[in-house]
Amino acid sequence: MTTISYEAVPTVEGDVAAAPGNTLVMKFGGTSVGDTQKIRDVARRLVTAREAGQRVVGVLSAMGDTTDDLIRLAHEMSPKPHPREYDMLVSVGERISNALCAMAIRDLGHEAVSLTGSQAGIVTDTFHGKAKIVEVRARRLHAELDRDQIVLVAGFQGVSTELEVTTLGRGGSDATAVALASALGGACEIYTDVEGVFTADPRVVAGALKLPKVSYEEMLEMAATGARVMMARSVEIARRYGVPLHVRSAFGDSEGTWITKEENLVLEKAIISGVTHDTSEAKATVLAVPDRPGIAARIFRALADAGVNIDMIVQNVSAEGATDISFTLPKTDLPAAEPILEMLAAEIGAKGVVYDPDVAKVSLIGAGMKSHPGVAADMFEALGEAGINIEIISTSSIRVSCVVRATEVERAVQAVHDRFRGYAEERVGA
Amino acid sequence: MTTISYEAVPTVEGDVAAAPGNTLVMKFGGTSVGDTQKIRDVARRLVTAREAGQRVVGVLSAMGDTTDDLIRLAHEMSPKPHPREYDMLVSVGERISNALCAMAIRDLGHEAVSLTGSQAGIVTDTFHGKAKIVEVRARRLHAELDRDQIVLVAGFQGVSTELEVTTLGRGGSDATAVALASALGGACEIYTDVEGVFTADPRVVAGALKLPKVSYEEMLEMAATGARVMMARSVEIARRYGVPLHVRSAFGDSEGTWITKEENLVLEKAIISGVTHDTSEAKATVLAVPDRPGIAARIFRALADAGVNIDMIVQNVSAEGATDISFTLPKTDLPAAEPILEMLAAEIGAKGVVYDPDVAKVSLIGAGMKSHPGVAADMFEALGEAGINIEIISTSSIRVSCVVRATEVERAVQAVHDRFRGYAEERVGA
Repeated sequence: MTTISYEAVPTVEGDVAAAPGNTLVMKFGGTSVGDTQKIRDVARRLVTAREAGQRVVGVLSAMGDTTDDLIRLAHEMSPKPHPREYDMLVSVGERISNALCAMAIRDLGHEAVSLTGSQAGIVTDTFHGKAKIVEVRARRLHAELDRDQIVLVAGFQGVSTELEVTTLGRGGSDATAVALASALGGACEIYTDVEGVFTADPRVVAGALKLPKVSYEEMLEMAATGARVMMARSVEIARRYGVPLHVRSAFGDSEGTWITKEENLVLEKAIISGVTHDTSEAKATVLAVPDRPGIAARIFRALADAGVNIDMIVQNVSAEGATDISFTLPKTDLPAAEPILEMLAAEIGAKGVVYDPDVAKVSLIGAGMKSHPGVAADMFEALGEAGINIEIISTSSIRVSCVVRATEVERAVQAVHDRFRGYAEERVGA
Repeated sequence: MTTISYEAVPTVEGDVAAAPGNTLVMKFGGTSVGDTQKIRDVARRLVTAREAGQRVVGVLSAMGDTTDDLIRLAHEMSPKPHPREYDMLVSVGERISNALCAMAIRDLGHEAVSLTGSQAGIVTDTFHGKAKIVEVRARRLHAELDRDQIVLVAGFQGVSTELEVTTLGRGGSDATAVALASALGGACEIYTDVEGVFTADPRVVAGALKLPKVSYEEMLEMAATGARVMMARSVEIARRYGVPLHVRSAFGDSEGTWITKEENLVLEKAIISGVTHDTSEAKATVLAVPDRPGIAARIFRALADAGVNIDMIVQNVSAEGATDISFTLPKTDLPAAEPILEMLAAEIGAKGVVYDPDVAKVSLIGAGMKSHPGVAADMFEALGEAGINIEIISTSSIRVSCVVRATEVERAVQAVHDRFRGYAEERVGA
């Protein structure tokens, strides 16, 4: 079984010459292709780019609820659908939307061809339902583009090294688009239902601003801390291969947000890129853990082996030979984590485990904070002045995250955003 | 472009050893796989055959209305959907039903794998929407069967010699099943919503009987003259490669009708196999055609070039240097045929063309009639005694067809069936 991932090791197809630089991969999400009228709009957009002289590749998600309907069918059929057959089933949704779009483009007088993931050379590993892209064999893509075709590629799917149909799991269509852009040497536009990346969620924070640019690293931190516009997965591929990403609205023509290399940003102004929040996690605390080497490793190894995703971990200094260890984890992982933690607590002689699902995480992200001391202190001050208690703190070189009560999350985001509003306005040029 | 058809020239894959003889291909039509419960029933049937020691291949049509829904989407998208993209679109229906069935089989504790037409090695010519099978590359099929898998193959589709997804047009799933049976050296069962092949349409004729056996040739004539249970296309493949076909009900366990070689029938008893009827055709008559060589050829060549399917042609002996030429054609071909005929009539100096859509064809089929003179006379007599006028007669060695008024067709079928009822009962052993 192949375990090398395109997302880990660059692979370049030896027999394909470097592509011309004016290739554009345009990806459209499910809400942008909800019905035939919307697919016609997407077709027009692709044709406009072609007429502007670009070599155009479209990647369309499945129409609206198609994939959900297929998943429902699978679960109606079987309590535990076989992964290979599941992929055979759910991969048809993208094939439908891309074939329809090719028809619409031809009606507009342009040449178009829709390709399955397999025909487009998207080679993946063998993990059905969550395959990773291993390689893009771009020979046919180049041939079709050379024949002046607008090429449509079914996102979210590929063919495994064992020649089976695979799907790429969450964020798979974005991953397809970015991988194609890297293989073809072009930029990648992600058309979505928001206008770009904002300094905070505009539904929550008054005064949130659209960012013209963010760095890959900032976007990764924002994605990891609750921003939903892009998943870390495709940003990571773009970062590794230097693919310029443009996140923009499918329902208008205004510029969105470019995700790009840090050197392209004016860093003096780039102190913060945004405030994110996440209410999907819970907090667990193992009480009075005996202070012996290897105890923390034992807890988190057991959780990792059970597939539990741990986020923040805090351990205070030991007092009287015992300490509390707190961490956050997705609420959906609680059922898997609880029996393991109860067992471990008994084994290691801890006092017990307490769970708290009513927490939220507020994060401040900014590539520039590396060279600006005091950013974290400013954030804590803003929360303190708003009367909001901080339960856990964790930091990276470009991020500060605080766990607060879930009931206070909106006030917390607003307070932090207000505090850094001047920087945000400076950054977006407002 | 490849024009060799599997339906014309046998191709045998050189590197595949002859298959064991106990392979069974089981094909299920759209009504047999209408929902997940019915697919579960199909899965049980496949498993039962596997447990009886057969190497089992299932070919499922698309669920109920899936393909119709996709066709509607295509026409909503485009007034004239591009044929290649149309095939990409409509071929997904079979992929869904076969993947679901594989899941259900696995839940029953057996191994199963669903294959696309391409994965199953169904190679076709390049005529999108109506491709013909050129070759079956059975290597993967053999490999999966050797691994004790129940193999499910998406019917109605293949991969062209230019590596594009193709669909096989009407009767395509049956063609897939029979071609697979020929490549794997097994029998083919067609599960459908009727119990087999009857001596006449049981909805029309009182006393119609289910035939235990018919010859390929009889079935071809019955299909060509209105019997809907099997299309001529797949019977023709079965005949060429000697595949035993078993047409039977998907909703019961009783034996259906075997379609087989003539020598397997007891011919003394096989005078007739059935009475068929067809109300889908119209009659056209070109009046007072000048009696010159080449005139008929000119008419029918022009119609053939326009894709009009001509069935019966009758030309009476010439009187006074001119003759009427009558023929039948599908009513749906009338719009294409009419302008051609008007133009030709003027060019060749005929008196005009008259059309009659209110006709029906009644046919009597029987491999045994070759050695039983008088069968045609018996049929005409039966119609005459019922007061039914015969407008056109045409015969082959195993068929007599009469065109009558459409309003009289049911009485005509009943009269002919009553006349030959004794032979029919003898044949079915009643």
